[in-house]
Amino acid sequence: MAVLVLGHMNPDTDSIIAAIGVADLMTKRGVAAKAVAQGAPTPESTFVLEKFGLTAPEVVSSVAGQKVILVDTTERAQLPADLGDAEILGVVDHHKLGDVTTPNPLEMWVWPVGCTGTVIKAMYDFYGIEVPKGIAGGLLCAILSDTVMFKSVTCTPQDKKAVEELAKIAGVADVMALGMDMFKVKSAVEGASMKDLVFRDYKDFDMNGNKVGIGQLEVVDLSILEPVKAGLYEEITRVKGEGRHSVFLLLTDIMKEGSEMLIVSDDPSKVEAAFGVKPEGTSVWLDGVMSRKKQVVPNFEKAFKG
Amino acid sequence: MAVLVLGHMNPDTDSIIAAIGVADLMTKRGVAAKAVAQGAPTPESTFVLEKFGLTAPEVVSSVAGQKVILVDTTERAQLPADLGDAEILGVVDHHKLGDVTTPNPLEMWVWPVGCTGTVIKAMYDFYGIEVPKGIAGGLLCAILSDTVMFKSVTCTPQDKKAVEELAKIAGVADVMALGMDMFKVKSAVEGASMKDLVFRDYKDFDMNGNKVGIGQLEVVDLSILEPVKAGLYEEITRVKGEGRHSVFLLLTDIMKEGSEMLIVSDDPSKVEAAFGVKPEGTSVWLDGVMSRKKQVVPNFEKAFKG
Repeated sequence: MAVLVLGHMNPDTDSIIAAIGVADLMTKRGVAAKAVAQGAPTPESTFVLEKFGLTAPEVVSSVAGQKVILVDTTERAQLPADLGDAEILGVVDHHKLGDVTTPNPLEMWVWPVGCTGTVIKAMYDFYGIEVPKGIAGGLLCAILSDTVMFKSVTCTPQDKKAVEELAKIAGVADVMALGMDMFKVKSAVEGASMKDLVFRDYKDFDMNGNKVGIGQLEVVDLSILEPVKAGLYEEITRVKGEGRHSVFLLLTDIMKEGSEMLIVSDDPSKVEAAFGVKPEGTSVWLDGVMSRKKQVVPNFEKAFKG
Repeated sequence: MAVLVLGHMNPDTDSIIAAIGVADLMTKRGVAAKAVAQGAPTPESTFVLEKFGLTAPEVVSSVAGQKVILVDTTERAQLPADLGDAEILGVVDHHKLGDVTTPNPLEMWVWPVGCTGTVIKAMYDFYGIEVPKGIAGGLLCAILSDTVMFKSVTCTPQDKKAVEELAKIAGVADVMALGMDMFKVKSAVEGASMKDLVFRDYKDFDMNGNKVGIGQLEVVDLSILEPVKAGLYEEITRVKGEGRHSVFLLLTDIMKEGSEMLIVSDDPSKVEAAFGVKPEGTSVWLDGVMSRKKQVVPNFEKAFKG
């Protein structure tokens, strides 16, 4: 039975491509493995999969009785409810260490870099295994996506170096042009329901006992989201009503390099406590804030602790 | 302020040497780091430190306000109580994933091998940094100690390969002779109090909400422990009385390759549930059981869950 390689709920491009990459790497190391995902690929991920001839991972919601390798998360809230009935063999990630625990020793590759793809490139090198051309293209796009084309504060020199090396393998001549094509796909809102948009890149966190949801939409120009903003607010209000303390939705302008955050919360003062900026009504502009992982989550965690 | 590199309570040779190795490696990677420990070295560790000209890490009990790298554990019960007020930059380990979490991304090197020393050797290689001669000797001894000279079920081909390479760097011609010298030191009980012996290699675990202590003494011949067995039993009874559900003490005969386990428990039936062997009175012989990590802890975790 193949080991399942699995990323977080509402999979983004990194989560999808990381599962494909790690499954390939493990299989070549002699452990038959298969990429799966907790949902269908986003339009951005579909663009990347098609561009590089990769297959979307099978969608699963249960992992009971399986052996699994986690990619791009160690948060139980972002993993199947029956994860406790699976055996976790490994983790490849670039986030904070979450609340997953294991009864057995495991293999963990976790680095403080901009993208799981960067860690996977290093694993291929470490084990002396060639990165297949299509996977190289996928990893490259995952890094461009997670680092917002190197603009995010999470971007490290390792990410840039990995992209440079992967571009050669994938035969991508103009990395930034590919990145812009990808972000234009990501920016599109036509045809998507409000629910699709809110959950396109959404994660729940446990903050000092409170369930807090944080979503993010990245666009090349905020004006793209003007027509849907009211609908998005209505949708996160509904999501909060399912038993959450707060739901925050980041509308990130990757060219202006900042985010407008929509706020529904039992205690909106947490926003000022976290960012030192007073919201106007139900939203606030956070200049320079582009990374949920490095700028938004840690600040909220401090605010919820205090 | 130097980053503190810190292992678990009741430090064993791996925990002490891993702290020294990772501090050296981090410093050479440009992050000033210092090895510390939550206690003085055992006689075995002192033998290793002296043999290879290494300095015992400074003893600390608090890490509040410090930046830390954890070695050889991710269990909060085995770390300073104020760890939550420190910033965890990294983890190097070979155990199951424990309950430590972080608010920020970090660097983790965790492999399912016999010893943290094996992971550290790979890190030196990965970063292209030479292992200093003394540290090579220390890492080599840590691996021999943790794998009980390659006899433990935890021992992997990577551990053996690391020892082979480290022996060359350290100039150790007869690895097994060095191992026997080290285990003879470890076997000695003269001059040690019962408390010293119980806590020489002791760890607390949270098992399904129950605090469970498991200690281990490894000797080259169980008869060495006959004169102190009654005293050891009295001591673990006292330790259990401090609010633990159970305390188990493994008396491991590394030549016979098995362990006698002394048992003090609110529910001694957990022992039979875990190992399928009925204790006679307050102890049980577990044939082939030498590894707390891979054979004892997972079995008890299942038994406490069921």
